[in-house]
Amino acid sequence: MGKDKVRIGIIGAGRIGKIHADNLLRNPNAEIVAISDLFAGPELEAWASERGISVVTKDSSELIAMPNIDAVLICSSTDTHVPLIEQAAQAGKHIFCEKPVSMDLFQTEAAVAAVAKAGVKLQIGFNRRFDHNFRRVRSHVLEGTIGDPHILKITSRDPSPPPAEYIRVSGGIFMDMMIHDFDMARYLSGSEVEEVYAKGKVLINPVFAEHGDVDTAIVTLTFANGAIGVIDNSRQAVYGYDQRVEVFGSLGSASADNDHPNTAEISTAAGLMRDKPLHFFLERYNEAYVQETALFIDAIIHDKPVIVDGNDAVQAERIALAAKMSMEQGRPVKMTEVPGASRETQPAN
Amino acid sequence: MGKDKVRIGIIGAGRIGKIHADNLLRNPNAEIVAISDLFAGPELEAWASERGISVVTKDSSELIAMPNIDAVLICSSTDTHVPLIEQAAQAGKHIFCEKPVSMDLFQTEAAVAAVAKAGVKLQIGFNRRFDHNFRRVRSHVLEGTIGDPHILKITSRDPSPPPAEYIRVSGGIFMDMMIHDFDMARYLSGSEVEEVYAKGKVLINPVFAEHGDVDTAIVTLTFANGAIGVIDNSRQAVYGYDQRVEVFGSLGSASADNDHPNTAEISTAAGLMRDKPLHFFLERYNEAYVQETALFIDAIIHDKPVIVDGNDAVQAERIALAAKMSMEQGRPVKMTEVPGASRETQPAN
Amino acid sequence: MGKDKVRIGIIGAGRIGKIHADNLLRNPNAEIVAISDLFAGPELEAWASERGISVVTKDSSELIAMPNIDAVLICSSTDTHVPLIEQAAQAGKHIFCEKPVSMDLFQTEAAVAAVAKAGVKLQIGFNRRFDHNFRRVRSHVLEGTIGDPHILKITSRDPSPPPAEYIRVSGGIFMDMMIHDFDMARYLSGSEVEEVYAKGKVLINPVFAEHGDVDTAIVTLTFANGAIGVIDNSRQAVYGYDQRVEVFGSLGSASADNDHPNTAEISTAAGLMRDKPLHFFLERYNEAYVQETALFIDAIIHDKPVIVDGNDAVQAERIALAAKMSMEQGRPVKMTEVPGASRETQPAN
Amino acid sequence: MGKDKVRIGIIGAGRIGKIHADNLLRNPNAEIVAISDLFAGPELEAWASERGISVVTKDSSELIAMPNIDAVLICSSTDTHVPLIEQAAQAGKHIFCEKPVSMDLFQTEAAVAAVAKAGVKLQIGFNRRFDHNFRRVRSHVLEGTIGDPHILKITSRDPSPPPAEYIRVSGGIFMDMMIHDFDMARYLSGSEVEEVYAKGKVLINPVFAEHGDVDTAIVTLTFANGAIGVIDNSRQAVYGYDQRVEVFGSLGSASADNDHPNTAEISTAAGLMRDKPLHFFLERYNEAYVQETALFIDAIIHDKPVIVDGNDAVQAERIALAAKMSMEQGRPVKMTEVPGASRETQPAN
Repeated sequence: MGKDKVRIGIIGAGRIGKIHADNLLRNPNAEIVAISDLFAGPELEAWASERGISVVTKDSSELIAMPNIDAVLICSSTDTHVPLIEQAAQAGKHIFCEKPVSMDLFQTEAAVAAVAKAGVKLQIGFNRRFDHNFRRVRSHVLEGTIGDPHILKITSRDPSPPPAEYIRVSGGIFMDMMIHDFDMARYLSGSEVEEVYAKGKVLINPVFAEHGDVDTAIVTLTFANGAIGVIDNSRQAVYGYDQRVEVFGSLGSASADNDHPNTAEISTAAGLMRDKPLHFFLERYNEAYVQETALFIDAIIHDKPVIVDGNDAVQAERIALAAKMSMEQGRPVKMTEVPGASRETQPAN
Repeated sequence: MGKDKVRIGIIGAGRIGKIHADNLLRNPNAEIVAISDLFAGPELEAWASERGISVVTKDSSELIAMPNIDAVLICSSTDTHVPLIEQAAQAGKHIFCEKPVSMDLFQTEAAVAAVAKAGVKLQIGFNRRFDHNFRRVRSHVLEGTIGDPHILKITSRDPSPPPAEYIRVSGGIFMDMMIHDFDMARYLSGSEVEEVYAKGKVLINPVFAEHGDVDTAIVTLTFANGAIGVIDNSRQAVYGYDQRVEVFGSLGSASADNDHPNTAEISTAAGLMRDKPLHFFLERYNEAYVQETALFIDAIIHDKPVIVDGNDAVQAERIALAAKMSMEQGRPVKMTEVPGASRETQPAN
Repeated sequence: MGKDKVRIGIIGAGRIGKIHADNLLRNPNAEIVAISDLFAGPELEAWASERGISVVTKDSSELIAMPNIDAVLICSSTDTHVPLIEQAAQAGKHIFCEKPVSMDLFQTEAAVAAVAKAGVKLQIGFNRRFDHNFRRVRSHVLEGTIGDPHILKITSRDPSPPPAEYIRVSGGIFMDMMIHDFDMARYLSGSEVEEVYAKGKVLINPVFAEHGDVDTAIVTLTFANGAIGVIDNSRQAVYGYDQRVEVFGSLGSASADNDHPNTAEISTAAGLMRDKPLHFFLERYNEAYVQETALFIDAIIHDKPVIVDGNDAVQAERIALAAKMSMEQGRPVKMTEVPGASRETQPAN
Repeated sequence: MGKDKVRIGIIGAGRIGKIHADNLLRNPNAEIVAISDLFAGPELEAWASERGISVVTKDSSELIAMPNIDAVLICSSTDTHVPLIEQAAQAGKHIFCEKPVSMDLFQTEAAVAAVAKAGVKLQIGFNRRFDHNFRRVRSHVLEGTIGDPHILKITSRDPSPPPAEYIRVSGGIFMDMMIHDFDMARYLSGSEVEEVYAKGKVLINPVFAEHGDVDTAIVTLTFANGAIGVIDNSRQAVYGYDQRVEVFGSLGSASADNDHPNTAEISTAAGLMRDKPLHFFLERYNEAYVQETALFIDAIIHDKPVIVDGNDAVQAERIALAAKMSMEQGRPVKMTEVPGASRETQPAN
């Protein structure tokens, strides 16, 4: 864009908004100009002032309208994503939006269309694409180390369930949690999903059943390139955040294990022990969060495609819908049964 | 049985029959009296003579009729299993039979009924139940270390596909290969399977398609205790025999990794390297084979239940049938749709 | 100090000085006021201006004299450390100084005495004390998990030798490289060294011999608490920076393995492979560098003892001298033979 | 020798003698003809009869004189080794002798000379040369994977100390325990030791001090090929038998970790746990014991050099003497100070 610094506005000053802010503050190519939050007040003003962020507002429209802002980070609640994307696109701002774009596929597609029309960039907050482990597995797949992918396996388990109020509005395990894994499945396999079979259970807490949700699920995927895959999710792994993947193919297998806070191992009369994996996403994906906004900035500055775009949001949401449908109807669901268009190609990266 | 030595006749002198023979020769509580094989000749006679096995015959009936034989090991081809079990049961011999008992569930059940009627013992050659790794995972599940099982995962991949002539008569991937994993699923979860969904593909060699078979498969299981599980099979893992399991539950997870020929690790400018896992079942389950016949002998001498009995054969075959049906019909199959009775309890061990 | 922000001056704008600067810029409790470097010029001024550091000077004395500076970081060449420490102490500034304090033990002791007299804090740049792995091993030792320490083992190998010009002035392998391990030995064992035996060789590059140095060494240590230990150093581990420790005791053993850039493992027909350890100290101790200055700031703000103080510098240098003497004379050397006083107690932390 | 079966007499029916017997009973190329033991009685006769060993005697001379014996295994107490070797050599029997050959280097050399004169084979019971892990490390060294060896590290720790009566006659930690590691050092480095420095401590049990022995030791070795090495021994690793090696060289490093009874890993809220290493030498070196006598038999049948010969016994004993001398005198000891001749070449294998 002919400039060496991208001027940023952040919409939504919750936990993830603040993390992105702190990461961008250390990025010499970014400058945070403004932050908006419905509940902005003295506390946020103090927080912003400490960081040299000059504008704090309750009004996201005001922020979007600021002429000295090149790009916005949408970190507000899911129901606000689509209107904000449309507004920002119309204002010619590049957009980083947290996942999922929306609970309504048609709205998501409308937002993506608005972005396309405006010719701005849209990057989706699928942070795992920026994880050192998964990127390394992906690079092995791309380089052909494991040949043609045959079987893809993803394990993704949270350390503890979210609170009931969150469960109520989360959109369910497939749209809220496994959506990351659906994106990862497309990313690691390099292929689109064609069929989904989902099996879910309430094994951890009946509160999930009260909201028509499950807390434990296994989903089988069939890919366009012939591979098959399986994802398992649990809302409660008492030993910490469990994030592992494996891509098995004609020439071998590439897998990634969890990250741990240290490599210390203790040997005693009771056995060998080491510490649990990094606790949760903030710890595990700490560096991935840094990378994802850094590469967003980089894509803007050098006018390169973003690593995860609007279509990636659409496709992951479509798979989540298929999984929900499959679980409810007790049968495999073809992606052609799900509204919205498949797109043949993924962005290269 | 009031004796301290079990006198054995071995039916079928193929590879696995000879392995069992050599293992039993080192067992002070066993004595091999006779061996039969359709193709018995000078070679087998020399082999038997070296080992002090005095009777060699082409006629399994002759062997079964020998009064100085307490138990038979049926290691002949699958189609002979049922008549041999019935014959041996009628003759009052204890029976060890390789898996699967038959390709026909009704025949398997008939054989099991004959055994029950005769009051002899029948142990099935599900050798993996005797593997050091899987037994340790099972012991953790039984001891409650991981709480209630929620998710069960089994990876089972062969180093290379069998020859075409074997594929033709194998009964298909579910009855021939994954049947071990179905048994392991029951063993590790401590629960019966209620529903099966199978997805299979031909990704390695079109010869599998020619015989209506697949070479790559993912199967989702639902258990009576509420847990869900997934098994993945491939006929060709170029890096060797891949045999891993995981049981994830309310209090944690127990998993077993592959065995390797050594622990040596090499660090060079190219990276860190270690040798592939043990090549195939003969290497990996070498000690499990020793254990399974040793415990069969032990069960006879001390009149204890065998660790894997006729019902285990029936249930594993029923799951294999359900998986085949599921794959062919493209839908989950309830175990109640499969002929044959479920049995509520598994033998304790 | 009744303030919540420590005002910092950095002396020496080489690689490590700039790393500390960038880390402190992200620290809300620190403010970098000035930076000095003998070769300060437009480049450094641009670098400082980007970071909001207002004063850039060639004259460290000017920086030390600035009344709005609370603490200095001495990151200049080793020969300048002692006069700068003395000057800064006299000016009442707290001091962070890179290791070694000097090549001359008497000077080091004089500097430490000047610090004591001035009542300021002095923290030494033994960055490994802040490493996540070693801290975890240390915590296990302190908590008694492994009982009384019996054997301590440290492996410390660089990925490649320094350039010849560096070797010439480095002070030799014991004072330049193994000094970190001597400090780690005291830190992990919680005890002082009483005797040293060193064996060194030139196996990598004859240039070391030209400067009276070695490139490969094994040193045996005897500790006051009865434990014995061994350190091995190599200037060239082609597979990367090798930094491992083990403390073995009456109740078990605590060890730390290397850190790796990712957990990805590849299984192919050639074997199992993973990437080399993190390349060198900048990668491996990246987070330790952040921690060490953060805790220095913290010690100043809350007037707490620093984690690694002047005596730690003195003792590590004394052990390095003993090692050199031992290697040259081909015999074990008692610490009582080395000039300078042992101190009985280490700072608790 | 033109025969396909080696006829064996076993001298000494203690634990190791019986293990060798049971291993050889499964070896189709060996036949155990006789066993002798000073305390032979009904129990040993029953044991032998069960195994088809026809001759049981108290008199080793009688056994050695039997014309239908080709080779003897000397498994009696250390003080009997030398006279038995000499007697057996004179009788033209091939000899397998447990380590150490004797506590007196001159006697050991005399025994080796007697063997050379008689032209029979002598294999020493350094069982670790037959361990799968160490052989793999050695093969990497031989193949040049790690380049020229620079640093050799051996950790060898027993799970618990021997009884006091054993300590009294053991010959001390260097001759009794570390002698295995001295042999391993020569084996893995492919080079002879030139200098030894030993540091020992009594940290586990004062009973060691009562017998002039130590229970914890670190020994530094200098090799003829320029490499340096270190061995650490402890008589008590509460977490089990700890047997690890590493050879570090110009092109990389080859290391071997412990063997474990299983690969099961448990993840709970308390951390990650796995079972301790295999308990002690009988478990860890179980297969190595099978291999060592199998290869002894093989060497006889095909008239090949044994893998570990009389000179290996002499050299390991010389290093043990040097270590003892070094510890007692508190200084490094050159191997030229130790009686007995170095031999330039090791047998290839």
